[in-house]
Amino acid sequence: MDYSSKHLEAAVNEISQLPGIGKRTALRLALHLLRQPKQQTEQLSEALLRLRNEVLFCKNCHNISDTDICEICSNPHRQAEQVCVVEDIRDVMAIENTGLYRGVYHVLGGKISPIDGIGPGDINIASLIEKVKSGGVEELIFALSPTMEGDTTNFYIFKQIEGYPVVTTTIARGIAVGDELEYADEVTLGRSIVHRVPFEVSLKG
Amino acid sequence: MDYSSKHLEAAVNEISQLPGIGKRTALRLALHLLRQPKQQTEQLSEALLRLRNEVLFCKNCHNISDTDICEICSNPHRQAEQVCVVEDIRDVMAIENTGLYRGVYHVLGGKISPIDGIGPGDINIASLIEKVKSGGVEELIFALSPTMEGDTTNFYIFKQIEGYPVVTTTIARGIAVGDELEYADEVTLGRSIVHRVPFEVSLKG
Repeated sequence: MDYSSKHLEAAVNEISQLPGIGKRTALRLALHLLRQPKQQTEQLSEALLRLRNEVLFCKNCHNISDTDICEICSNPHRQAEQVCVVEDIRDVMAIENTGLYRGVYHVLGGKISPIDGIGPGDINIASLIEKVKSGGVEELIFALSPTMEGDTTNFYIFKQIEGYPVVTTTIARGIAVGDELEYADEVTLGRSIVHRVPFEVSLKG
Repeated sequence: MDYSSKHLEAAVNEISQLPGIGKRTALRLALHLLRQPKQQTEQLSEALLRLRNEVLFCKNCHNISDTDICEICSNPHRQAEQVCVVEDIRDVMAIENTGLYRGVYHVLGGKISPIDGIGPGDINIASLIEKVKSGGVEELIFALSPTMEGDTTNFYIFKQIEGYPVVTTTIARGIAVGDELEYADEVTLGRSIVHRVPFEVSLKG
């Protein structure tokens, strides 16, 4: 492809490094920026630099944060003895959006996956085990995706903390709100019957 | 959405200004950058700034360029008397990629579209008419998309240069190479029969 400009070519190459963005989309985005006021590109460029250079990870839960200890961990109204184990920062956001959880989190940053060469040492498991062993954690809520890797990770952590006085739970699997029963897979439907809960008119946190 | 970090939130807001990128994709891209070495974000940020601040538009044909006059216009081996009228910089790239055109271009930067409020004065038509009127153009090749707006633009330019000694042509409409005849629309198929060309074993520029 002849871009007529080495600056355009360099920009297209850099943009297409991003996941899910090919050369064609990168070119479209670059030409869009050229048509917009300079200010937009400057703001974008600055926001990216600030993101990469100034965002920290919470020393306690590994969540993204602007401070050493994140807002959730440093909030005295959150129950620090209830720890929800999630894979990713986006899972924290998703659970926070429900407004129904008042405990804290532990972000693993991945799942154990021998196929991808990710072992227990590659994700934030050691600090979680340490947290449990040093006491102060009453309940560990596993909220990983219900995949082979998620289940492996849950099991690994579970074995490591066996014997310590901590309750381990996992988020409920069942029929999604709004889903048609007939289209649910049998594993999910089966679990939703086995783990049925008392009927309540409304569910509030 | 609670991003846990104002830098992350700012980056997501800026990225999602780009066309076709929503908040969810912007978040995915931002988290990707956070996982990559700082260098990648720095290079991306710098490439965007350089793109916006240093890319010029050719004073002659309005194509993108790193110099006042683009490489195509300043190339003595290109036939300056043959001018291909295109809408967009991407069209120049597409035609250049064929390797079959040795003339020069004129990039309009859009098409006349009363519905979108784009009149002849909003795109680079005046400089094209001027080029034709001052002589030196022997053939004008219309290579706009075969839409209502493209046809309107062709017709407007054609009326403006009527009476001047310039041949006007348009790129051939017909069945795309590799396409099945039975799936072609009747307008395209009709034109391809009316404008049939002598049979040749191979087509070389």
